[in-house]
Amino acid sequence: MCGVFGAFSRDGRPVLEDIYLGLFALQHRGQESAGLSWIEGGVARSIKGMGLVHNAISQGMVSSIPARAAIGHVRYSTCGDSILQNAQPLTINYAKGPVAIAHNGNLTNSGGIMRYLEDRGAIFQSTSDTEVILHLMAHQSHKMPLDALMDALRRIRGAFSLVVLLEDRLIAARDPWGFRPLIMGERDGVVYFSSESCALDMVGARPVRDVEPGEVIVVDRSSVSSLRIPVKPRRGFLCSFEFVYFARPDSVIDGISVYDARKNLGRRLAKRCPVKADLVAGMPDSGTVAALGYAEEARCPFEMAIVRNRYVGRTFIQPTQRVREAGVKVKLNPNPSVLSGKEVVVIDDSIVRGTTASRVVNLMRSAGASKVHLRIASPPVRFPCYYGIDTPSSEELAAARFDLDQLTEEVGADSLAYITQEDLLNAIGAPEGRLCTACFSGEYMEDDANGIDL
Amino acid sequence: MCGVFGAFSRDGRPVLEDIYLGLFALQHRGQESAGLSWIEGGVARSIKGMGLVHNAISQGMVSSIPARAAIGHVRYSTCGDSILQNAQPLTINYAKGPVAIAHNGNLTNSGGIMRYLEDRGAIFQSTSDTEVILHLMAHQSHKMPLDALMDALRRIRGAFSLVVLLEDRLIAARDPWGFRPLIMGERDGVVYFSSESCALDMVGARPVRDVEPGEVIVVDRSSVSSLRIPVKPRRGFLCSFEFVYFARPDSVIDGISVYDARKNLGRRLAKRCPVKADLVAGMPDSGTVAALGYAEEARCPFEMAIVRNRYVGRTFIQPTQRVREAGVKVKLNPNPSVLSGKEVVVIDDSIVRGTTASRVVNLMRSAGASKVHLRIASPPVRFPCYYGIDTPSSEELAAARFDLDQLTEEVGADSLAYITQEDLLNAIGAPEGRLCTACFSGEYMEDDANGIDL
Amino acid sequence: MCGVFGAFSRDGRPVLEDIYLGLFALQHRGQESAGLSWIEGGVARSIKGMGLVHNAISQGMVSSIPARAAIGHVRYSTCGDSILQNAQPLTINYAKGPVAIAHNGNLTNSGGIMRYLEDRGAIFQSTSDTEVILHLMAHQSHKMPLDALMDALRRIRGAFSLVVLLEDRLIAARDPWGFRPLIMGERDGVVYFSSESCALDMVGARPVRDVEPGEVIVVDRSSVSSLRIPVKPRRGFLCSFEFVYFARPDSVIDGISVYDARKNLGRRLAKRCPVKADLVAGMPDSGTVAALGYAEEARCPFEMAIVRNRYVGRTFIQPTQRVREAGVKVKLNPNPSVLSGKEVVVIDDSIVRGTTASRVVNLMRSAGASKVHLRIASPPVRFPCYYGIDTPSSEELAAARFDLDQLTEEVGADSLAYITQEDLLNAIGAPEGRLCTACFSGEYMEDDANGIDL
Amino acid sequence: MCGVFGAFSRDGRPVLEDIYLGLFALQHRGQESAGLSWIEGGVARSIKGMGLVHNAISQGMVSSIPARAAIGHVRYSTCGDSILQNAQPLTINYAKGPVAIAHNGNLTNSGGIMRYLEDRGAIFQSTSDTEVILHLMAHQSHKMPLDALMDALRRIRGAFSLVVLLEDRLIAARDPWGFRPLIMGERDGVVYFSSESCALDMVGARPVRDVEPGEVIVVDRSSVSSLRIPVKPRRGFLCSFEFVYFARPDSVIDGISVYDARKNLGRRLAKRCPVKADLVAGMPDSGTVAALGYAEEARCPFEMAIVRNRYVGRTFIQPTQRVREAGVKVKLNPNPSVLSGKEVVVIDDSIVRGTTASRVVNLMRSAGASKVHLRIASPPVRFPCYYGIDTPSSEELAAARFDLDQLTEEVGADSLAYITQEDLLNAIGAPEGRLCTACFSGEYMEDDANGIDL
Repeated sequence: MCGVFGAFSRDGRPVLEDIYLGLFALQHRGQESAGLSWIEGGVARSIKGMGLVHNAISQGMVSSIPARAAIGHVRYSTCGDSILQNAQPLTINYAKGPVAIAHNGNLTNSGGIMRYLEDRGAIFQSTSDTEVILHLMAHQSHKMPLDALMDALRRIRGAFSLVVLLEDRLIAARDPWGFRPLIMGERDGVVYFSSESCALDMVGARPVRDVEPGEVIVVDRSSVSSLRIPVKPRRGFLCSFEFVYFARPDSVIDGISVYDARKNLGRRLAKRCPVKADLVAGMPDSGTVAALGYAEEARCPFEMAIVRNRYVGRTFIQPTQRVREAGVKVKLNPNPSVLSGKEVVVIDDSIVRGTTASRVVNLMRSAGASKVHLRIASPPVRFPCYYGIDTPSSEELAAARFDLDQLTEEVGADSLAYITQEDLLNAIGAPEGRLCTACFSGEYMEDDANGIDL
Repeated sequence: MCGVFGAFSRDGRPVLEDIYLGLFALQHRGQESAGLSWIEGGVARSIKGMGLVHNAISQGMVSSIPARAAIGHVRYSTCGDSILQNAQPLTINYAKGPVAIAHNGNLTNSGGIMRYLEDRGAIFQSTSDTEVILHLMAHQSHKMPLDALMDALRRIRGAFSLVVLLEDRLIAARDPWGFRPLIMGERDGVVYFSSESCALDMVGARPVRDVEPGEVIVVDRSSVSSLRIPVKPRRGFLCSFEFVYFARPDSVIDGISVYDARKNLGRRLAKRCPVKADLVAGMPDSGTVAALGYAEEARCPFEMAIVRNRYVGRTFIQPTQRVREAGVKVKLNPNPSVLSGKEVVVIDDSIVRGTTASRVVNLMRSAGASKVHLRIASPPVRFPCYYGIDTPSSEELAAARFDLDQLTEEVGADSLAYITQEDLLNAIGAPEGRLCTACFSGEYMEDDANGIDL
Repeated sequence: MCGVFGAFSRDGRPVLEDIYLGLFALQHRGQESAGLSWIEGGVARSIKGMGLVHNAISQGMVSSIPARAAIGHVRYSTCGDSILQNAQPLTINYAKGPVAIAHNGNLTNSGGIMRYLEDRGAIFQSTSDTEVILHLMAHQSHKMPLDALMDALRRIRGAFSLVVLLEDRLIAARDPWGFRPLIMGERDGVVYFSSESCALDMVGARPVRDVEPGEVIVVDRSSVSSLRIPVKPRRGFLCSFEFVYFARPDSVIDGISVYDARKNLGRRLAKRCPVKADLVAGMPDSGTVAALGYAEEARCPFEMAIVRNRYVGRTFIQPTQRVREAGVKVKLNPNPSVLSGKEVVVIDDSIVRGTTASRVVNLMRSAGASKVHLRIASPPVRFPCYYGIDTPSSEELAAARFDLDQLTEEVGADSLAYITQEDLLNAIGAPEGRLCTACFSGEYMEDDANGIDL
Repeated sequence: MCGVFGAFSRDGRPVLEDIYLGLFALQHRGQESAGLSWIEGGVARSIKGMGLVHNAISQGMVSSIPARAAIGHVRYSTCGDSILQNAQPLTINYAKGPVAIAHNGNLTNSGGIMRYLEDRGAIFQSTSDTEVILHLMAHQSHKMPLDALMDALRRIRGAFSLVVLLEDRLIAARDPWGFRPLIMGERDGVVYFSSESCALDMVGARPVRDVEPGEVIVVDRSSVSSLRIPVKPRRGFLCSFEFVYFARPDSVIDGISVYDARKNLGRRLAKRCPVKADLVAGMPDSGTVAALGYAEEARCPFEMAIVRNRYVGRTFIQPTQRVREAGVKVKLNPNPSVLSGKEVVVIDDSIVRGTTASRVVNLMRSAGASKVHLRIASPPVRFPCYYGIDTPSSEELAAARFDLDQLTEEVGADSLAYITQEDLLNAIGAPEGRLCTACFSGEYMEDDANGIDL
């Protein structure tokens, strides 16, 4: 998971502050590092750093630089080490000039391309798969930069929502499978691209349309044009987890409101696996909207039964013996005066390793809940993701290790239930063959990495 | 507003990590600075710093120090400059040994005492009124430290919930008016004092009882004893704003659940000033619980119509022109897919200057709301607070400048309504003459600062 | 050892940059911390920090503050811990207004005064003896600040060269025994005080005269006046080590050129204990000038036989096994192409613990010297200093533990010799009964701390 | 100017601390950045930073890493921006494994090679010419790393003294013209390479021999072998400025003692252009040794007439108006008690822009010198250097702009004189056609960059 944001001002207004604000709104998509890039005097420049946007990037510098086109990135480590060298955007100055690139997603054939290019003299500086795209461009140095980029996009497989800055244009590209969201906006002569619509709201931009799967949109001073990556996939792979967990509830992805989707997931859950209870609680913040849907459907009162410590954020607390005892209470405190003596339904978005679920159930009991029913607003996660989400391998996935009864016992709940994959597809409401459900079903994109012409 | 926390281990177990965890749970009471103190080799030692607990205090150091008794503080600047010198606990080594003190509240007669003591040779190091207590003790150097402290507590007026560390004992004291909360807890031979019960939950301690107004509790290795400050006030002054806004909803203050109080405030609001609407929204996070109460009473659906950027926290964003344009969206984004075309009731805890209210109303309209009704879960704030809350002077208070119609227009709402002071007292449910309502009613504590024997 | 500097501009010109430059020139007198203070709006303000002047103090801030009077300090820890709290100048705002003070020297009766004042209510914040002066002033709060200061100076014993800033005047004071230097300068309407004349050179000021022992000079907008501390010592105690080691060779102290004194010490050494050799080397940098005097008198060529790594400075290198092997070579490398096969006389200013001497002798042998004769340009140091120099206690002083033959063997030299105390007094050339030789002779100032009227 | 250092332990002892110590001894060759690299698990690792060695590199980390082979670098910016990205060693992991490289010198044909390689797909990350060597290797990925390195060395022109680390060996290479020094040492089974012999002294290593111009020495666990770069230059180009200014006086370069050379330069100066004077002074520290030679030859006393502030080091002082007034006194103070009323000969190593010379002459006059004669221990610098020394272009070189009379007037001296190029060659004593004198004579190396086979 990462977030990308780009802006191009037709009439020369500075846009770096907009990138900064946009990254703020996308902060939930990555807290490891942040950066932004622009081109100045024919050279790609960057400000990057570790941590949250306001730690990584000096707002003062940002406000003082008059770039008319820029891109930004927030990174959530998926592949590559957690070091500044891997922070994006990546920038180079190659034979045909400067390039800056910001990437959300994960390539599935980067290893093979990397080895091929190294044999032809390439020196890779980072362990990020994004660098492959730049080297593919550099090895086509006889072509113009945009043509070299198009050539590179044809050769890569997997998930990529990109914003790319060339000397005189801003480019947005989305892989042919449509794994990750990417939306275009507009405001007073400035064209924006963003991973989510909530960042367009932030800068006051009007959503224009989603970048389509396989589409490359090129913005320069005089025009906005649309190109196609010449790869035809059999079906779409828009990540369901964007709706289940990642995206902000105030975003709209490929025309679907994340809030509505999440509330529908809660309603389906109430229908699929109802239970008698005194109150409905949502795991803050990921289960809250589904819990509202559940409560509405089940006609059972929704309460803020778990209080989130809103200052914890990215805080790293060393896991000393004493801190382990305190456990999740460091972040979440079940409210004794709400829970005492009550039967509770707790809604969470998903169970991955199962550790959080079991801690929360314990905690609610110790705060006085008489019964704790756990309801999950997505199907069981049984398979790892290769497209940009940081899930563990199968043997660590709770739903792959245990059947439902075992897992109920494992997490200590009085009952545990999930929705089905059919519920999920219906609740989100995307067209047939559009959503990726690989982490639930194991149905990955066909591997057509063979036969790529390098 | 500040938070204090103290711990004394009867059987010698280290308690500094407990202080650290306790301050985490009290972080909402102060984000300007944090610190903790203990006594080692007859000398009071401290770790203090600016910012949030985890920035201000090195957890690694904390874990390595085997102190059996300690106190901690989170500070929200009310009086005194925002500098490290004012961070608490304050520590001294005076003629009779070491003292460390952490203070929540504001003294009303510190100025006069300070001038009196300076004339007798005192040198004040900070601009904090807490230092007055230490100098009062030092000027009674012929008495034992506990007696000198009792003497000092007799001379001061205003709000003080204190934890004090002497060489061999931990002391908790609450002013005779009971302005600020202070609660005692216990766990496995460790006695705790905390501004709020949520911090007792954090360290796994059982709440024992509230420290009573005017009570001084002294803990040493063999006993827990209770003393009285010899000042008899005519009535109590427990701050209503603790229930309205400050305290965490999972705390219980003087036997009253903050969550229940806040939900009751919402219910009263729905009864007192109902309005037809499609949905109820709460200002995150201060209005959320009252909004749930309102929604329940009004049988109108509660929705997460405003999304909070949970990474903003203490972020300081420079108010450049572009940032001013973005406005509150930097922190709060109204969700267009929820609001579009709807009549909305927005619940907030209070209106102080009115600027946030007016921005939120605008924002909700721009996100598509057809009507915006603002409902406030407390009476109008018309008077400044002198007891530890950082309210502005009367001429900046919106409710002191405008009548209700003017204010409705000022904030741009379709309608605006408050509860009454009677509603407030009923909703909270404290005994007669127990709550301070000075900021609503102007009924301050009688000024008996005269005639103090120094 | 510390350094102090003060400036008062008669016509209102800003002087903080002058303080900054002056402290630069006094950096050799203390590298632990640095600071400067001025008074603004009736409040004493400071910029202080650990380490060298340019680390401790932001030059940018200094340049932007328009103070017309200010003082500064560089600290070399002698008494009190090495912490920022002990960095000077110390500042207070007491009953009669702001005071800032910077102190070079060590008081011998501070302990007793501290205990006396604590019993009267004083709270000491630092472990520095300088704070005693401020508390003595505060306990005379019925007097005007200058009178309170004069009263305090009358009560203290030991070494003090002070610059003090009051609201409207700059004061320089030197103890009645004249332990530490203090000189007044002038330039374009600005009056300066400095520990050494080299700092007057730095700011382009003309030396006016030394502050006399027991003198207090008061500068305000209209006048420069001279007061006397009413204490009459039997003799003077100007520190000989200022000439031997501490002061910069380009300074003039009480009318005596440090360079001339040091060269004379070398000449005396050549006369007192001559030896046949191929070349003369000086320990960089403390023995260089004496070595030039020795070479001149002995008509033996002076060579740069030991090369100093001029980047080492304040570098702290952890004493790992490998670093211990490298030894003093980290700082000083004997030049093999100069030393190979040669008989060498090495001149050093003094021997304290003897460890450096023995390492250097070894090193020179390993660089090929056939014979190494060590000559010390001061008498044997046998007694600790109580007046501001950081010497160890007697049992660690090499000359107190060994006789000359033993010490020669201990350091591994072919021969070792010192000058006598008579040589020292003659070489420096101060009037009879003017110099302190306590560290050589054990003749300390008479202890008249008794009978002080507090 | 830069410094390089390498170590390879035959019996597996850790060498990183030796690199750290070696860089300390080479600190005078570069203060902009420092770094060291080793290979661990098949990957080249580095610790690098801006500033002096002890700021740039954490000694604690260094001590804990058990690498048996490593290289280090101190950088003095000559080409490329002053940024961390340009700090050396440079490291890559290319198709044939890890490489680390540290380079002293400047290539004269790097621009052409860079453009050629970019057209073949290379992406350059830094602006340093050293990266060209790595890309040349990577573009020969079918060869073994050592062969690829030999191939690269054949193609480059200009000055390079290199240490290179491959997976299993340490390589030292010196360009065929011998521009920069490079010496091999040995100690207890560890082979060292260093820019100067003083760093061998530091780690206790015995100098074995200089790396010869055009030689490549390869060290692995079982052998030390010598290869040749197949380029035959017509003559040698050992930099004279190493003897005049750069190298430390305790180093021996290509068999010649820098101290002896520098003293001889001073003696020649006394013979070539004698002048009657009371004393001889050397500009600290660059003119000191030559001043000793001058004083010896002229039988005129040498005095420390200019005192260097040894804490200034790398301090950056902002050039405010007040600081400009203070001028060079911030670093150097002429000693009034030595200079007053005297005729002085001041020896400096060279005049480049002439600004320092003129400031020093002024300063000595203001300190009371009656006459100031400036004597320069090298010929006039009239031409820029392209081989690694940071001289300005001709129009900024004082000796290229003015004739001797004009320059005497310009710097304000009573007289000014240089030695001749013949004096220089004789004083240093290198074999005929061995020294580069391009900056004095304009005789650069023949440009045979054309016809290089890429």
